[in-house]
Amino acid sequence: MLTGLNVAVIGGDARQLEIIHRLIELDAKLTLIGFELLENPFLNAAKEKMDDVRFREIDAIILPAGGTNGKGEVESLFAKEPIFLAEELIGQTPEYCVLFSGIKNEYLKELEKKTGRKVEPVLERDDVAICNSVPTVEGALLLAMQNTDITIHGSKTVIVGFGRVGMTAARAFSALGAKVKVVSGKKEDLARIAEMSLEPVPLAEIGEAVQDADICINTVPALVLTAGVLSKMPSRTFIIDLASKPGGTDFRYAEKRGIKAFLAPSLPGIVAPKTAGKILAGALVELLTDLLIRKEKLNLWNCEENGSDSD
Amino acid sequence: MLTGLNVAVIGGDARQLEIIHRLIELDAKLTLIGFELLENPFLNAAKEKMDDVRFREIDAIILPAGGTNGKGEVESLFAKEPIFLAEELIGQTPEYCVLFSGIKNEYLKELEKKTGRKVEPVLERDDVAICNSVPTVEGALLLAMQNTDITIHGSKTVIVGFGRVGMTAARAFSALGAKVKVVSGKKEDLARIAEMSLEPVPLAEIGEAVQDADICINTVPALVLTAGVLSKMPSRTFIIDLASKPGGTDFRYAEKRGIKAFLAPSLPGIVAPKTAGKILAGALVELLTDLLIRKEKLNLWNCEENGSDSD
Repeated sequence: MLTGLNVAVIGGDARQLEIIHRLIELDAKLTLIGFELLENPFLNAAKEKMDDVRFREIDAIILPAGGTNGKGEVESLFAKEPIFLAEELIGQTPEYCVLFSGIKNEYLKELEKKTGRKVEPVLERDDVAICNSVPTVEGALLLAMQNTDITIHGSKTVIVGFGRVGMTAARAFSALGAKVKVVSGKKEDLARIAEMSLEPVPLAEIGEAVQDADICINTVPALVLTAGVLSKMPSRTFIIDLASKPGGTDFRYAEKRGIKAFLAPSLPGIVAPKTAGKILAGALVELLTDLLIRKEKLNLWNCEENGSDSD
Repeated sequence: MLTGLNVAVIGGDARQLEIIHRLIELDAKLTLIGFELLENPFLNAAKEKMDDVRFREIDAIILPAGGTNGKGEVESLFAKEPIFLAEELIGQTPEYCVLFSGIKNEYLKELEKKTGRKVEPVLERDDVAICNSVPTVEGALLLAMQNTDITIHGSKTVIVGFGRVGMTAARAFSALGAKVKVVSGKKEDLARIAEMSLEPVPLAEIGEAVQDADICINTVPALVLTAGVLSKMPSRTFIIDLASKPGGTDFRYAEKRGIKAFLAPSLPGIVAPKTAGKILAGALVELLTDLLIRKEKLNLWNCEENGSDSD
């Protein structure tokens, strides 16, 4: 249970609704900011404007999967007005207050430094990222089905990278009958790819691997699909870049060559908001439970201190 | 090679373009009807209007996957005007002329009876139907991804029927991690379903099987998802009916209960027209080769007859 924990949920998409549901179930005290347009409002959760929130009583803040933009604006599907995460407001929270975000961008790093409040990037945790790779890869399948005139079955698919998302993509595309090659720079990855009966490709040979690709999926957050690599692809190749912004594709050159390339970093919220929300909610409940224990210890300690003070 | 065979291609969608490509490669003489709006016209294929075609010289007619509608109108994505398959035109063809259609509806059965020209429903052949089940099922995956807020992975999916499409659906959904139950009335099907490590459900128990279904896929061309069965489903269940028109779902009752149900019989042409066209082209080439041999034998026989006449 999260009884006694004050949580502010600021902005987000349909995933946030799952999180809110779960936190209400566990008896957290919720303040919702940026949810004015919600059709079915939640009972047991106060809707407030950013300036009206008593931040000194807030124990935890939940931001959307995408965090903020570069200027500190929080995106919200259900907000009437733009919401900004201002340093002076966050600075009013108790020192132990934690900001939970999907990812941690430059703005949030700077905010953490200036306010001393911890920013926890939930989607960067291995367990969450692995669970979240499932809706990500189903989104990639959806894009591939919508943007090619062939079946996944029998398609020549090249997956670049064999991390948390790459392995899931390799498994899903091959399970549907694609002929899958997986590119990696790590020898142990190449061994695992071979063990899975897929075709391992050392990073140095990526150019040859893409020569007859129908579909190419990048999961590496560094420029791997360079102009040099793209120049070897057939123009029919459909590229899905799942790496976080700005992706790992030379999009300018892809466009010049007439290769369709999509940067698609937030597929889970689009293709399966409920599942994706449940994944985030599961991780948040664990993290908030830890925070509640810390808060209670602190309160106990403060009481004792105050007690000894009055002696 | 199909040198010497006169083929009229009447109407259709992007699948027909693959068929036309293949037949041109094999040197068939093509007449295209209903392709006025084609952006990249084919060299080596004459575009004509229905009334200008010299049907007495046509050896084979290729209709779209859907054949005609009930009134004999042929659908064409690329036609300016409606096209009708009139009895008097078809009657002008040589007696051995064959009409190849995806399916054989009442209009085509009647036409076959009246003109004596054989109508061959290509999509009803087992080999073609099995190949075609791949794009069909990928289309079902696409619909499920678009119309639910959960992942296929972990979803409770009930597949009704274990024929050519049902088996492919069972395999694909379970390969992506769905919890799959398959309903069949045949004992040997239930054994095979168990062998595939899926959950077999005898037809009599369909009502219990759908009680917690997230996704339900029907492949049986008879009313199996009756009001009684639908009444047991949660209202969140998403129904995809892949059986040929009118499907096997009580759509009226589904709507009344607020259950989303799609009749989706022509997914291959939407989701993977190139692959689906290649499947049809492969089958047509075999069938047209047989027809060409028959035609040549007939010609030889006529020559001999004429020869002995002149003696």
